[in-house]
Amino acid sequence: MLYFQEMLGIAVFSITGVLAIKKADVDLFGAVVLGIITAIGGGTLRDLLLDLPIFWIADFNYIWAALFAALLAFFLTKGLQRRYRLLLYLDGLAAALFGLAATEKVLDLQLAAPLAVMMGVLTSIGGGIARDVLAGRVSLLMSRDIYATPILLGCTLYVALRDIFPTVWIAGWIALIFTFGLRSLAIYKHLQMPAIFSTSQG
Amino acid sequence: MLYFQEMLGIAVFSITGVLAIKKADVDLFGAVVLGIITAIGGGTLRDLLLDLPIFWIADFNYIWAALFAALLAFFLTKGLQRRYRLLLYLDGLAAALFGLAATEKVLDLQLAAPLAVMMGVLTSIGGGIARDVLAGRVSLLMSRDIYATPILLGCTLYVALRDIFPTVWIAGWIALIFTFGLRSLAIYKHLQMPAIFSTSQG
Amino acid sequence: MLYFQEMLGIAVFSITGVLAIKKADVDLFGAVVLGIITAIGGGTLRDLLLDLPIFWIADFNYIWAALFAALLAFFLTKGLQRRYRLLLYLDGLAAALFGLAATEKVLDLQLAAPLAVMMGVLTSIGGGIARDVLAGRVSLLMSRDIYATPILLGCTLYVALRDIFPTVWIAGWIALIFTFGLRSLAIYKHLQMPAIFSTSQG
Repeated sequence: MLYFQEMLGIAVFSITGVLAIKKADVDLFGAVVLGIITAIGGGTLRDLLLDLPIFWIADFNYIWAALFAALLAFFLTKGLQRRYRLLLYLDGLAAALFGLAATEKVLDLQLAAPLAVMMGVLTSIGGGIARDVLAGRVSLLMSRDIYATPILLGCTLYVALRDIFPTVWIAGWIALIFTFGLRSLAIYKHLQMPAIFSTSQG
Repeated sequence: MLYFQEMLGIAVFSITGVLAIKKADVDLFGAVVLGIITAIGGGTLRDLLLDLPIFWIADFNYIWAALFAALLAFFLTKGLQRRYRLLLYLDGLAAALFGLAATEKVLDLQLAAPLAVMMGVLTSIGGGIARDVLAGRVSLLMSRDIYATPILLGCTLYVALRDIFPTVWIAGWIALIFTFGLRSLAIYKHLQMPAIFSTSQG
Repeated sequence: MLYFQEMLGIAVFSITGVLAIKKADVDLFGAVVLGIITAIGGGTLRDLLLDLPIFWIADFNYIWAALFAALLAFFLTKGLQRRYRLLLYLDGLAAALFGLAATEKVLDLQLAAPLAVMMGVLTSIGGGIARDVLAGRVSLLMSRDIYATPILLGCTLYVALRDIFPTVWIAGWIALIFTFGLRSLAIYKHLQMPAIFSTSQG
């Protein structure tokens, strides 16, 4: 069941990736490649750094899921754009899932909690950043959108709760609800980072 | 003999890489580094992802070939630019060679055909994309030039023919002629992706 | 003691990394991530290419040093900017140290001298280039600033001297003084690459 969720998350990332660059004059090949990179970029970087087999080389179904979702997004752009807000929430949910799953994966390797949190955030936002760099867009690192911060806080919460609760699943659900809730709030209220945490103050 | 062709391909990639950025105000160091990255970037990414020893660490002659070609391109820019169309065809030939060689390399590792095609395309276009990102240029992913599509089709054709023909070399030659022919046609006729496969339609 | 110097170098890189992007409208998360990437990017790429364990996964203190330095730079920007010239010299010293340390590290692996020099330069400038790409800035590869050339010459000098002098430390000190001296001269005199080595001539 977790596998099915992962595939859905990959597909959602790929769709939002294609929609994000579809305003530019890009062709089918470029759009599909950028969709796939959005979907698998973060996990690829994580596996490279940890010297693990790249997850989509071990199981090519991840690429198929990203590929079909990107094709869908390319040809059904208008219908999907009408549901853009829904996709934004789904993207937030997928980001939360990937972040927490990566945190757990690193903890499973007996590595330290701060590293696990760092890898969780990287897995979650790496693909979107890679897409923005390749597409010449301003990446989320240079914006005040509240996208990465909920994941950072959520992964930190997860490693804290994991020591408290005997069952990993309870910690996981609480952290997921917290991360997704925070991100949903930011989407719903159009929140941006407060001025004291951004350079616009000085 | 294949080794000699690879070195020539590396040199051609390095030269077109330097020429591509020579209009900007770049110094010798930057030009040479970007030339080398154009030449070896795709293969480096392939080896990283497949967890193979990086090909130019195993054999530094690849770096020397890229380095001398980049120096040549830097100091003989005008002469080379007069032959720019010839270089464009040579670049297309090198891209086809690298793509097919990488596809064969991955199949040799007993990995699946779709992964082999993907790695073929990545090896072929990865260096040029890395150069464009580092030079702040619009990368080929965001253009409608027909550069990557012939390689994608050619590598796919190769894996199909390889099962049909008893000798790998026949499949290789047919795929090479097909890939290079398609790219040459695109250069000669200034072809771009048809509107139905690009975003300019809607 | 070398360990302590490395930590200081990481911190200096992180501070100059944050200062370099602080003019843009970036929030705390983005600034800290870009500071850390500036500090550890080059060494990370070196370890990935050489298939070594990533240095900051093996010892997370590197990340803490980069993190605290980035936080400092974010909140004390004005005070640090007043000392920007001092930071520029410290950055040059850190770059020289990292370049020479990486050269020695690669020679220790019994790899060839040209590869060691290449890795030295890459370790030294890789993080700054990654930051510039992620922040959408023009990278040093596209400028005529004399930043990488002293490191290239210094690492080359080091591998030459290492064969002459019986003690590695003497070679190291001479190369360090040479590299840092050249970079300091470039900062002090606002030197740029001579026209013959740059594209502005033609």
